Amino acid sequence: MIKDIIDKKRLGLSLSYEELSSIFNGYMKGEVEDYQMSSLLMAICINGMGEDEIFDLTEIFIQSGDTLDFSRIPGIKVDKHSTGGIGDKTTLVIVPIVASLGVPVIKMSGRGLGYTGGTIDKLESISGFRTDLTNEEIIDSVSKVGAVITGQTANLVPLDKMIYALRDVTATVSSIALIAVSIMSKKLAAGADKILLDVKYGKGALVSTKEEAEELALLMQKIGKKYQHEVRYVLSNMDHPLGCYVGNSLEVQEAIETLKGNVAGRFYELCIELSSHMVSMSKGIDYEEAVSLVEEVIKNGRAYHKFEEIVCNQKGDLAHIQVSPHIHPVYSEREGIIKDIDALKIGKLSLSLGAGRCEKNDVIDYGVGIVLHKMVGESVHKGDLLMDLYFNHDNFEVDQSIFKIE
Amino acid sequence: MIKDIIDKKRLGLSLSYEELSSIFNGYMKGEVEDYQMSSLLMAICINGMGEDEIFDLTEIFIQSGDTLDFSRIPGIKVDKHSTGGIGDKTTLVIVPIVASLGVPVIKMSGRGLGYTGGTIDKLESISGFRTDLTNEEIIDSVSKVGAVITGQTANLVPLDKMIYALRDVTATVSSIALIAVSIMSKKLAAGADKILLDVKYGKGALVSTKEEAEELALLMQKIGKKYQHEVRYVLSNMDHPLGCYVGNSLEVQEAIETLKGNVAGRFYELCIELSSHMVSMSKGIDYEEAVSLVEEVIKNGRAYHKFEEIVCNQKGDLAHIQVSPHIHPVYSEREGIIKDIDALKIGKLSLSLGAGRCEKNDVIDYGVGIVLHKMVGESVHKGDLLMDLYFNHDNFEVDQSIFKIE
Repeated sequence: MIKDIIDKKRLGLSLSYEELSSIFNGYMKGEVEDYQMSSLLMAICINGMGEDEIFDLTEIFIQSGDTLDFSRIPGIKVDKHSTGGIGDKTTLVIVPIVASLGVPVIKMSGRGLGYTGGTIDKLESISGFRTDLTNEEIIDSVSKVGAVITGQTANLVPLDKMIYALRDVTATVSSIALIAVSIMSKKLAAGADKILLDVKYGKGALVSTKEEAEELALLMQKIGKKYQHEVRYVLSNMDHPLGCYVGNSLEVQEAIETLKGNVAGRFYELCIELSSHMVSMSKGIDYEEAVSLVEEVIKNGRAYHKFEEIVCNQKGDLAHIQVSPHIHPVYSEREGIIKDIDALKIGKLSLSLGAGRCEKNDVIDYGVGIVLHKMVGESVHKGDLLMDLYFNHDNFEVDQSIFKIE
Repeated sequence: MIKDIIDKKRLGLSLSYEELSSIFNGYMKGEVEDYQMSSLLMAICINGMGEDEIFDLTEIFIQSGDTLDFSRIPGIKVDKHSTGGIGDKTTLVIVPIVASLGVPVIKMSGRGLGYTGGTIDKLESISGFRTDLTNEEIIDSVSKVGAVITGQTANLVPLDKMIYALRDVTATVSSIALIAVSIMSKKLAAGADKILLDVKYGKGALVSTKEEAEELALLMQKIGKKYQHEVRYVLSNMDHPLGCYVGNSLEVQEAIETLKGNVAGRFYELCIELSSHMVSMSKGIDYEEAVSLVEEVIKNGRAYHKFEEIVCNQKGDLAHIQVSPHIHPVYSEREGIIKDIDALKIGKLSLSLGAGRCEKNDVIDYGVGIVLHKMVGESVHKGDLLMDLYFNHDNFEVDQSIFKIE
């Protein structure tokens, strides 16, 4: 009985494959009620799950929908997943980098529900860019230009969508086990050979400490091992926004500048690190060797050229990227050193400008966003330009406490 | 936000009165969803609640409906609550006992949802017995015969009904805090001056160990103290059925025999203990003094006479109690000492005979049930009569493992 299964987890006991299957698949079929599932999810959040339970639940998640097979494409395909954060446009940079080095990439991305748009939203700020490629078009594109960034083609892990929606409203998001199952089931169903994880921690992330991020990463690595998939991870801090541009078309612009080698700093370094791991994993070469290959394709322009090829292949027109003509500059009201830039507050401001969605069907304004002119550690005088806000409707409010200046 | 309140309890933090009120009253109003409440209930089950939270939640429960005031009736009114168990018909015995000693009793009882009927169901097996008295009829009855046993007259603690129904299907019944709030809010809303609790533990009870029963009892005593109500408790074992008769009209018969002084053993002793506490609390006399008063009214017939008066006052006809004419005897298949009689299995057998309800609207067959002819500790030979089953439909199955004979 469903009640007995929930009760076992309330007591902190392990659930068998059969028990997990009967309650999760029962939920898919509508036989288990939302209020029973949320009660189980809370018990899992508090009492945790053992490794066998996590492996079993991952399998149940994968089996809930279609699985993709891209074995027809030659080469070792490496997928990358980031747990997300404010200003994270790494996908736009690393896919062209690794593709320019001959690593085949099929990157399936999502739309954003939250402070900023997802990778797909960002790409759609490029006029004409198609994100709805079929499986055949994906395979053709990879043969032609070596990479594709597109929306999900199939009904991958529908159970995750249902469970995620319920977790979101029942305060059961923050379970390392449930996060690991959610991410890994989707990556494994999407048919990559190897997986690179960018696990964020800090104010703007799913987990707050580096230790939790590492725990999550190690758990996902174990799930990968269970399926004979190599998994590597990078832990990155999300206390501050990643890069200086936040908002869909603005982030595309920053990605372009990064690919052209015109950007330095933390965002650039993370792009190099992630790209080098992907190249190293795909080619079976040392990380250091991969780093010098990656730095080279940025310097010699091949990475940016690959970006142009990918965009062109997906019918995007780089000459037409929507950016709002209305700019509201924000100046510092005091003098001192910038100790902190609050990623969460930047996210909320970005949302109020119209760059993200509160509800699934909200329409994103691609052209709005934020450009930071000062970063953490820099000194400012009163009246210095801190950031520019790109807006179309002036129903936003600027919170000076975004910048902690002391 | 509701999600933030749930999240606090997930982390094991205390909720304020305002937070508890916004989520529980929101649930009453339909603004908080079942799946959010069940998630909170599971977090409470696992992480517990502090005393202040328990006091606050009790007050929120009480305020969710009407409260009764019987201060017009002279004398210290003592209410009794039992956490319930198989064969528990103590109310039918102790109300006449204490009323015959001049202690006014307004006992509001419920119908059963489970293995056997509740007190109200048992009384309705007496032809004509009215259990739907109005508040005025209750006051008149107490002035006339000193006691009344009736169904709930008002909309007492409607929040408890909603929460209990949800707990029942989400494996969140077994929280000491939630049990205490549920019981005490109802007792306090029902307007008694003092409260006696019979807290059961063991196989057939809400809690399994004596320690848990004591923890629950002490917690309820603290809640009572907060409202300046004296609360006493008795802890009683529910591993075995209470008494020899299980089933509605059969239990009325055992109650009558007990009141007539024809029954000895554990059930009789519990009735004496509970009655004596109620008399002691109401009259402010020593427990030992109360015991001798109680034993006297059984011996001299005044307790049984009071039972007749109460039944007559509520239009019941003791000459017409439905008992099924169909009896299925169960004989021992082996020889030895009875080490155990499984209360839970007796309950399930009773339910299969038709003496209880699976669903709220199931109809109870008052005349069916079980009469045990051997108790724990007795020796039996092969072929000895263990029990008689009173049935009307032969779709029951006898499990010989009810009796553990070694």
